[in-house]
Amino acid sequence: MNEIRINERTARADFDLAARLAAMHTADAIELFEELELDDIINIFTALPLDQAVQILDQPEMRQAPAVLVGLPLHTACAIIEAMSTDRVTDIFHELDPSQRARLVEGLQPETIAALRNLLRYPPNTAGSLMTVEYVSVPSDWTVAATLRHIKEVERSRETVYAIYVVDKQTKRLLRALALRTLISAAPDMPIMQAGRDITPVTVHPLTDQEEVARLFRRHDLLAVPVVNKSGRLLGIVTVDDVIDAMTQEMTEDTHKFGGMEALNRPYMQIGFLQMIRKRAGWLGVLFLSEMLTASAMQYFEVELEKAVVLTLFIPLIMSSGGNSGSQATSLLIRALALNDIRLRDWWKVALREIPTGLVLGSFLGAIGIARITTWQMLGLYDYGPHWILIAATVGTALIGIVTFGSLAGSMLPFVMQRLGFDPASASAPFVATLVDVSGLVIYFSIALLILSGTLL
Amino acid sequence: MNEIRINERTARADFDLAARLAAMHTADAIELFEELELDDIINIFTALPLDQAVQILDQPEMRQAPAVLVGLPLHTACAIIEAMSTDRVTDIFHELDPSQRARLVEGLQPETIAALRNLLRYPPNTAGSLMTVEYVSVPSDWTVAATLRHIKEVERSRETVYAIYVVDKQTKRLLRALALRTLISAAPDMPIMQAGRDITPVTVHPLTDQEEVARLFRRHDLLAVPVVNKSGRLLGIVTVDDVIDAMTQEMTEDTHKFGGMEALNRPYMQIGFLQMIRKRAGWLGVLFLSEMLTASAMQYFEVELEKAVVLTLFIPLIMSSGGNSGSQATSLLIRALALNDIRLRDWWKVALREIPTGLVLGSFLGAIGIARITTWQMLGLYDYGPHWILIAATVGTALIGIVTFGSLAGSMLPFVMQRLGFDPASASAPFVATLVDVSGLVIYFSIALLILSGTLL
Repeated sequence: MNEIRINERTARADFDLAARLAAMHTADAIELFEELELDDIINIFTALPLDQAVQILDQPEMRQAPAVLVGLPLHTACAIIEAMSTDRVTDIFHELDPSQRARLVEGLQPETIAALRNLLRYPPNTAGSLMTVEYVSVPSDWTVAATLRHIKEVERSRETVYAIYVVDKQTKRLLRALALRTLISAAPDMPIMQAGRDITPVTVHPLTDQEEVARLFRRHDLLAVPVVNKSGRLLGIVTVDDVIDAMTQEMTEDTHKFGGMEALNRPYMQIGFLQMIRKRAGWLGVLFLSEMLTASAMQYFEVELEKAVVLTLFIPLIMSSGGNSGSQATSLLIRALALNDIRLRDWWKVALREIPTGLVLGSFLGAIGIARITTWQMLGLYDYGPHWILIAATVGTALIGIVTFGSLAGSMLPFVMQRLGFDPASASAPFVATLVDVSGLVIYFSIALLILSGTLL
Repeated sequence: MNEIRINERTARADFDLAARLAAMHTADAIELFEELELDDIINIFTALPLDQAVQILDQPEMRQAPAVLVGLPLHTACAIIEAMSTDRVTDIFHELDPSQRARLVEGLQPETIAALRNLLRYPPNTAGSLMTVEYVSVPSDWTVAATLRHIKEVERSRETVYAIYVVDKQTKRLLRALALRTLISAAPDMPIMQAGRDITPVTVHPLTDQEEVARLFRRHDLLAVPVVNKSGRLLGIVTVDDVIDAMTQEMTEDTHKFGGMEALNRPYMQIGFLQMIRKRAGWLGVLFLSEMLTASAMQYFEVELEKAVVLTLFIPLIMSSGGNSGSQATSLLIRALALNDIRLRDWWKVALREIPTGLVLGSFLGAIGIARITTWQMLGLYDYGPHWILIAATVGTALIGIVTFGSLAGSMLPFVMQRLGFDPASASAPFVATLVDVSGLVIYFSIALLILSGTLL
């Protein structure tokens, strides 16, 4: 008795909430769902009108979407999926396990299943994985008026109607991409092929990387780009909202990689403890093993170290300066390569710029270093011994050498990455620092041997 | 005589090129201009039809735009400027010096001058600096059909017609934002206020940061966002293409800052040598001065150093591990804060996650470190002396402490930045490394004193 009353109350609350959701922005509704338990969310979705359920689940920000679709009664879930955009359903299907997927597929229309099968083939981060098949296309013998009438009819079921694709009637090859605004101001009886400029449309292939897709959107100020196969047949389109999401995701991944870890693709708080450890331990371990070479380098210079412990005082200072200048150069070149400001073949131009830059920056730091040693010695804050001038000279010269090496190595690393077929953005600041640390020690001790042998060494 | 013939030939060549440009994508034309001298570009522009000149100069990628407008005859330049989008002209005017600006302003219409003056007031990286005043707005008592007729008339002079803004007739306050697609499928005689959902439009203020603008585009899948003043009056709109450009620019700036330098806003190869030095020397100098504390710390532990030179062998290894784990944590939190995955008030939740993460990662590296010392000692590769077990214990314990401290400090730094009113993305990998280096040395020597006093120390 009591339980029934509670359920009744819950059901009413769900309907009330569903009514409130109708007056909210989709994004705000999604934020509200983040606070709720899955069971409550599923109850609300059973009470929501279809078009609003679709609108909410269509957003990639709605992270509980896979669980909601699995939890809903099969016919409700399938009605929603039929009305959702295929690219979003593809993403959701990628997150389901095979048995859940199979159950949902049972209730879908054959055409929807075929479209999904098709899209599920494309690897993530490609144009194919971002594309939708809900676009507007018309045969090349239509008029402007016929096209506009068609748009009016299909508007509800298309992801965008602002880009219209004209295809060859027989071959289905893409002939022209038109903006809706051009059609609106064109004469109604004009043949569609005469509206807009006679220009080959910008297209991508299904396997084009999403970074390249984003570059094309930027370059041509697109709202959508058609995806065509090798023979020019239209397969689907990628819309600007998906590109913005992809850019944001790339930016997060690139930052994580530059910070020296594997990219995380979920929010910080939603990563499990063990997965977090795994994503960070890998690179940390590799860097640690590489950095062990510094211990070997120092063991090699053991005799010098014993004779002149004063030299060790400056090891962290000198090494970190090399790492810092390297990290600067790497950040510069990662972006220059990503923006196509610089091509792979221009590596030598960059090298010819970084060497003088490193020399000037190294001299600047070297001067500060010498000033510091001189001041401390003069003011009696610390006694670097009778050969303090030579020590200061060693530190100054080493800084020039190491900062120059750091700038050069840091700037070349993204080129090496690209040349080896990796993303230049995989070059990380800690990796550059490690690279420069090991060679920096060798530079430092070699210069010390050169300047100090016969006196301290 | 000879000279005249050359000029004639040049003029013909310019006309030929102008004809070829008509069949090219704007972006390709711009790329072609990159290879040409300024004089040639200006000659071509005098031969180009107005609408094409406008289309090319409207692109931010057309870097010579300011120089071209200055170089063209005044009446040509002004005709182009009148037809260009005001947001782009504003950007160009920002690059001109006052005398060049004054000359161009002379030839412009009073309304254009007023619009430009208005836009030039807004600081860079704000919604105001990105916005254009070429939008479609209609009074609230119009019908759908009247609105569509209006769009057809003004289409050519508007940056976008896909978002339509309904404003109050008297107060000019923004009442509703509508998508063109909704209008196309609505009944023609429907009052405009009844088309579309009854929902408060998403708006920004002119001083809203462009990062926040980008976040709203992502959240609501917008093609344009209206900019309103405090009383809700429509001032302009920001379109998605400008947001994509702004996102790309932010990404470059954030990468440069994370790499430990001032952000560069021009392509690598176009930065002057001195400017490059200036952008890099500042932070390099600050980091160098901070890192000098490592020398002070080591001077403080001088006695211990003299007694146990063997401890110095592991200084680079231990310090870099702290910096690396800090850099990982910083990259994670910079993005989590940028994406609003985590709010400022959640800092303690992050701290409570980073401490156990750091302990596990530190133990992992510590175990490798101990294994390395043991192996070298056992295989006779190096002799760490009779107390090698204690040394190994020192290194292992220090790694746990330093990696934990690094993870904690690295994750808290972006919060501190945000709390102090800076962009969390200003937290750089080298800065974290420096922070951790100094404290890492103190941790290392303190643990050494604890474990080794009575034996080595």
